[in-house]
Amino acid sequence: MAGEFDLIRQFFTLQTSSVRVGVGDDCAVFDLEPGTQMATSTDLLLEGRHFFSDVDPFKLGHKALAVNLSDLGAMGARPVGCLLGLGLPNFNESWLARFAAGFHELAAKHGCPLIGGDTTRSEQGIVISVTVFGSVVAPFLTRASAREGDDIWLSGSLGAADVALSLLMRVRQGEMLSGPEHELLEKTRPWLEMPVPRVELGLALRNLAHAVIDVSDGLLQDLGHILQASNKGAVLQLSQIPVNAAIAGVAPAQKRKAVLGGGDVYELCFTAPVRAREKIRMMGNESGLSLSLIGTITSGSELKVLDDDLIEIQDLPSGFDHFR
Amino acid sequence: MAGEFDLIRQFFTLQTSSVRVGVGDDCAVFDLEPGTQMATSTDLLLEGRHFFSDVDPFKLGHKALAVNLSDLGAMGARPVGCLLGLGLPNFNESWLARFAAGFHELAAKHGCPLIGGDTTRSEQGIVISVTVFGSVVAPFLTRASAREGDDIWLSGSLGAADVALSLLMRVRQGEMLSGPEHELLEKTRPWLEMPVPRVELGLALRNLAHAVIDVSDGLLQDLGHILQASNKGAVLQLSQIPVNAAIAGVAPAQKRKAVLGGGDVYELCFTAPVRAREKIRMMGNESGLSLSLIGTITSGSELKVLDDDLIEIQDLPSGFDHFR
Repeated sequence: MAGEFDLIRQFFTLQTSSVRVGVGDDCAVFDLEPGTQMATSTDLLLEGRHFFSDVDPFKLGHKALAVNLSDLGAMGARPVGCLLGLGLPNFNESWLARFAAGFHELAAKHGCPLIGGDTTRSEQGIVISVTVFGSVVAPFLTRASAREGDDIWLSGSLGAADVALSLLMRVRQGEMLSGPEHELLEKTRPWLEMPVPRVELGLALRNLAHAVIDVSDGLLQDLGHILQASNKGAVLQLSQIPVNAAIAGVAPAQKRKAVLGGGDVYELCFTAPVRAREKIRMMGNESGLSLSLIGTITSGSELKVLDDDLIEIQDLPSGFDHFR
Repeated sequence: MAGEFDLIRQFFTLQTSSVRVGVGDDCAVFDLEPGTQMATSTDLLLEGRHFFSDVDPFKLGHKALAVNLSDLGAMGARPVGCLLGLGLPNFNESWLARFAAGFHELAAKHGCPLIGGDTTRSEQGIVISVTVFGSVVAPFLTRASAREGDDIWLSGSLGAADVALSLLMRVRQGEMLSGPEHELLEKTRPWLEMPVPRVELGLALRNLAHAVIDVSDGLLQDLGHILQASNKGAVLQLSQIPVNAAIAGVAPAQKRKAVLGGGDVYELCFTAPVRAREKIRMMGNESGLSLSLIGTITSGSELKVLDDDLIEIQDLPSGFDHFR
């Protein structure tokens, strides 16, 4: 069995030109572009809480980095590098190789090399801690920047990750899925397991959007964070919120809950002035990523969702609270 | 029970002038001094592996940050800020308040404010992930910079943390300690639970030392990292290695093992040219932190320890491998 240091060397040694000191020293050291600020974010992923022990390690490596890159995207930051803390109950070389492959593939795609980390044996389950760094320039795309009258936009579509999670939970509890349910799981689970961080979109939104957040906890809860930080309200039109095509056949009530309350999506929800509307539409057309206008920022502090008849929906699902 | 966001706000909101965006947004954003590079390091601390569940949370908060600040010290970096990832099995307000107090006290002392993080419920034990940032200027105090003929220095003294850990392990296994053992535990456990990161020493070693490392895994193992990275050997004189006064009464064999192989110390081991000797001695006198000359960097790749009769010791203890 290899020691920690061999382990790190074997799977996690990568360097790029802006990195002065990389994996294996006390600290990683790197340069920032002159005139930029450092943006940084960290996420903990725990077995049993954020993923199941039998998840494909390639996908887990991808997702552990993706959820962090998503935070850089929501800040309009350009990725610079990342750190990985990894607690493992045992040494499994093929598991680790696949985890590293998924992690590195996404890191390479976004120019976000692994520059340091910590590996330890875990007495409990798998523990993953990723920290990402990016460079940003002011004005920053914070949650507090929404203004009254702003359009509310959403990238991509919602609901598939939540439906996949519900089905996987039932499988974990020993339930047998029906044929159509099994098909639905296969169609939806890539959205849960291989989320695409919207880093390029975040960069494109600099100087265009006001407030930006990534939908990690559920649209209503995350938009709620913008509203709270900006001291504003919002009205959303349910019919304008794009539903992932993979869940077209799901019952309306579950669909609505998945779309409004489902987490683990990593699309960007952002506000922008009405005058930016055409530019944003063009951006969406050119990039091939759908950008949908789903509502308006209002004065006050309420978040309202209108149904197809423009009547306010009363029984809104609540989002995912990490600590509930 | 409070939600994640209240929890974060309640205990972990702090901002300083160099921080543009702090706790509670997608990313923290901060400035670096012009002309400096970013140094960063991350450490995972897991219950049952790095600490026991009944440890004083104040001390745990202190230590979680201290072990990371120690890495900045070993790089000669000036602390700028930190991130905290916290996984907790349940919500315990008084526990959290004490943990935060220990964390913040040390953060304030070193000008290293908490600027962001992630909180989650853990299905297993307590999970702590800390990432620190510092600013550095070249030349960096890496592990690879030791040169033949360099003096080898050590700050402070060794052995107390390891003796405390051994005694605590016996208590955990249900053993009753004798009166003198209990007294020994009380004298040694502050070294294990409240390590002092040598941040100021690291800063003072810029332009003075060659290679620097913090003794987290044990003197021999950590010095071994310098030797391996620098492609050098070393000779240490056991009689010159300072033994913590708290373990003066411990049997010689255990003492030797604790001093040479005991981890969790967070003193700095560094190499420096002979011409820096007087300057380093003066620095030690002025700061009140003892700095001991314990050996010499040699050509080759062997690490030898000489006993009081200058005979090479054959049965050296090995250090702590995080993954063994």
